[in-house]
Amino acid sequence: MSSDPMAGNRFVVQYYETLTTSGVRLFLARHDALVVRLGGESGQWDVQEVSDGNLNLVFLVHGPAGSVCVKQSLPHVRVDPNWQMPLDRTEFEAAWLRRVAQIEPERVPVFLLFDSDMFVLVMECLDNFVTLRQAVGNGGDAVEPSRVIAEFVARTAFFSSFLARKLEDVMPDLSFFAKNTTLTRITFDLVLSDPFRPHCRNHWLKELDRDVAELQNDEAVLLAVAYLQQRFLASPQALLHGDLHSGSIMVRGDDVRVIDGEFSLYGPIGFDCGLYLAHLVLAWAAAPSAPRRAHIVDAIDIFWAEFRKAFLALWQAEVPGGDLCSRATFSVYPSLLRLEQEQYLDSVFSDMVGFAAAEIIRRIIGYAQVTDFDWLQTTSEKAERQRDALVFAANLLRKAPQSPEEVSARLRI
Amino acid sequence: MSSDPMAGNRFVVQYYETLTTSGVRLFLARHDALVVRLGGESGQWDVQEVSDGNLNLVFLVHGPAGSVCVKQSLPHVRVDPNWQMPLDRTEFEAAWLRRVAQIEPERVPVFLLFDSDMFVLVMECLDNFVTLRQAVGNGGDAVEPSRVIAEFVARTAFFSSFLARKLEDVMPDLSFFAKNTTLTRITFDLVLSDPFRPHCRNHWLKELDRDVAELQNDEAVLLAVAYLQQRFLASPQALLHGDLHSGSIMVRGDDVRVIDGEFSLYGPIGFDCGLYLAHLVLAWAAAPSAPRRAHIVDAIDIFWAEFRKAFLALWQAEVPGGDLCSRATFSVYPSLLRLEQEQYLDSVFSDMVGFAAAEIIRRIIGYAQVTDFDWLQTTSEKAERQRDALVFAANLLRKAPQSPEEVSARLRI
Repeated sequence: MSSDPMAGNRFVVQYYETLTTSGVRLFLARHDALVVRLGGESGQWDVQEVSDGNLNLVFLVHGPAGSVCVKQSLPHVRVDPNWQMPLDRTEFEAAWLRRVAQIEPERVPVFLLFDSDMFVLVMECLDNFVTLRQAVGNGGDAVEPSRVIAEFVARTAFFSSFLARKLEDVMPDLSFFAKNTTLTRITFDLVLSDPFRPHCRNHWLKELDRDVAELQNDEAVLLAVAYLQQRFLASPQALLHGDLHSGSIMVRGDDVRVIDGEFSLYGPIGFDCGLYLAHLVLAWAAAPSAPRRAHIVDAIDIFWAEFRKAFLALWQAEVPGGDLCSRATFSVYPSLLRLEQEQYLDSVFSDMVGFAAAEIIRRIIGYAQVTDFDWLQTTSEKAERQRDALVFAANLLRKAPQSPEEVSARLRI
Repeated sequence: MSSDPMAGNRFVVQYYETLTTSGVRLFLARHDALVVRLGGESGQWDVQEVSDGNLNLVFLVHGPAGSVCVKQSLPHVRVDPNWQMPLDRTEFEAAWLRRVAQIEPERVPVFLLFDSDMFVLVMECLDNFVTLRQAVGNGGDAVEPSRVIAEFVARTAFFSSFLARKLEDVMPDLSFFAKNTTLTRITFDLVLSDPFRPHCRNHWLKELDRDVAELQNDEAVLLAVAYLQQRFLASPQALLHGDLHSGSIMVRGDDVRVIDGEFSLYGPIGFDCGLYLAHLVLAWAAAPSAPRRAHIVDAIDIFWAEFRKAFLALWQAEVPGGDLCSRATFSVYPSLLRLEQEQYLDSVFSDMVGFAAAEIIRRIIGYAQVTDFDWLQTTSEKAERQRDALVFAANLLRKAPQSPEEVSARLRI
């Protein structure tokens, strides 16, 4: 045992080197199971680098028999080599993937390997999938994927929470994911801090100058965000994905998969719900027609309704249950359990709305923006649509809606 | 790195053996600094076993030059060898002691040594101190110690919280103390669960049968307790002592020390406040005279007033501050910071009241009771006093007081 048990994560980086396409080939060839999966000789494998996120190297590898996806942490932000970053994030993604695969194996890529010296994660390659953002942007269905993600969030949240598990089972995971401070810092700064004050990482269309100034000087907004910051850091209800936007969701027909769990942490369930909701709202603001907007509002309605239904169904069914609010605790008073459940879900709803607002705002005026508006021809059109989303989001923080109907009513105008 | 990073605490127990008085002598003689502190030869040392808590062996050792206190975990509850228990709790106490010594060095015994093979903690021996429970029970002052403890809780909570520290500094501690599941389980069960349902560990005077039945069948009480359970497990605001009753506080004149941090965890600040408050209320209920009762109510008033004052003063002074609600965040709107502070402290007050109620109840009808009532001659007298405390506590849960004045008004009748 270490003399200082608090020394925390220390990583042996002596074996680490950044992968190249030929490095990927050599790496995979050392693992028999992966060689079998790919088939043939390593020289026959097609290795393509497809890195397009902000943080990592990603390679897709195809062999005669099958394919894999290889993801490696870089010691810096991929798009900004001056922004240095510890390598451990792939470890949290690997841990998230393995936890979630126990709950929702059909909804994540198959985990194949994690190499803790090279910080390399190997998983199923999602051939012919596109991101949900692309699918919805191209006029695809938003309703069915929202139903699927609602159930995914409900199940992963419920089964990782104190509602379903004893504290002896939750705490080791909570303890482990609490070490994911590098990416928790990014979320805290980029989603919940920078956009609400002048900061050099922010940027926006000049047409939005006045909106941004109003937002950053609105006392109600600032108070709401201070509360969201507390919820985010100090409400470990369940294991979250932590970055559940429509670019972290892959679809192919009715096959829906969630990827990129490197931001995972124990936090408030409404955070995952809120991020998903935010990107539906961004798609709504960018949508090319009124019927298309209406379709996305339908998806928003369905998302919360399905989440709520699925979460409650698990809570009602769950036996023997976790430490909090189990059916056993309230066996004598089932009506109390119902009341407790309503309060719990009201609180998730309230968190969802708040975090959705912060995420919408940061995707329009913060460091990392979205592509949804790129199809618009002029900046004035783009600014107008972005203003729709920005005003909707700011109003969520100024005056929180009391029901899901109120959310969609605000979008149906 | 382990292939499963979640494997959690595993302790090498091969070197462990339960200490005897001669074992203590041999153990201390192996450590030069302790030999110097004690003076003379190990044969000259006076070793007394004084174990009287529920969980550990405790020895006080005096040599020609000085003294030490030696505390060792047992692999079972001391008073119930059939209740087995992991040994790691001393490690959490040692970690707590070292953290708190950085913040309030004058308020804890001096840390001397932790041996992680033997699970032995060696610290300053508090010669001629008595517990605050004994002091108050013997008619001693309750007001000044309450002032000191209020400041102690305010300072240790504030400086371990996200209010004063960056998440990169808080999360490693949060991660470490989240592993203290053995004693967190005990608190969860004995304080927040068992007393509110029929359970074989509960026991009480038969005169209280009706009160207990009412309490355990009161829907408002059960809902309030379900909420407290959530707060306890999933609101890591600050590093708590976790068992801050008047037997964990030692006094000698105006020297006040807090001991026994083995229940330490990240949790809601109101939990520590509430436990301290609960034992003042128990002392109030057991007090021999009306003036004595009034004195203890004064101490209760002072405790919250001083806690609030000290906590706010730190928050106002703190520079550069932590991640949550720092002065920097609200530099443009100082009035918002004030509002945020009021809301935060209202929430601590509300937690304090709830946890105090649970603690009072469990000390009268639960597994581990208090000695405050032992001086009373007849069980009917004892039951009457305990009923005062029990009814007061149940009413805190049924109808939460909205102000500290309301708490003391309920006690001044």
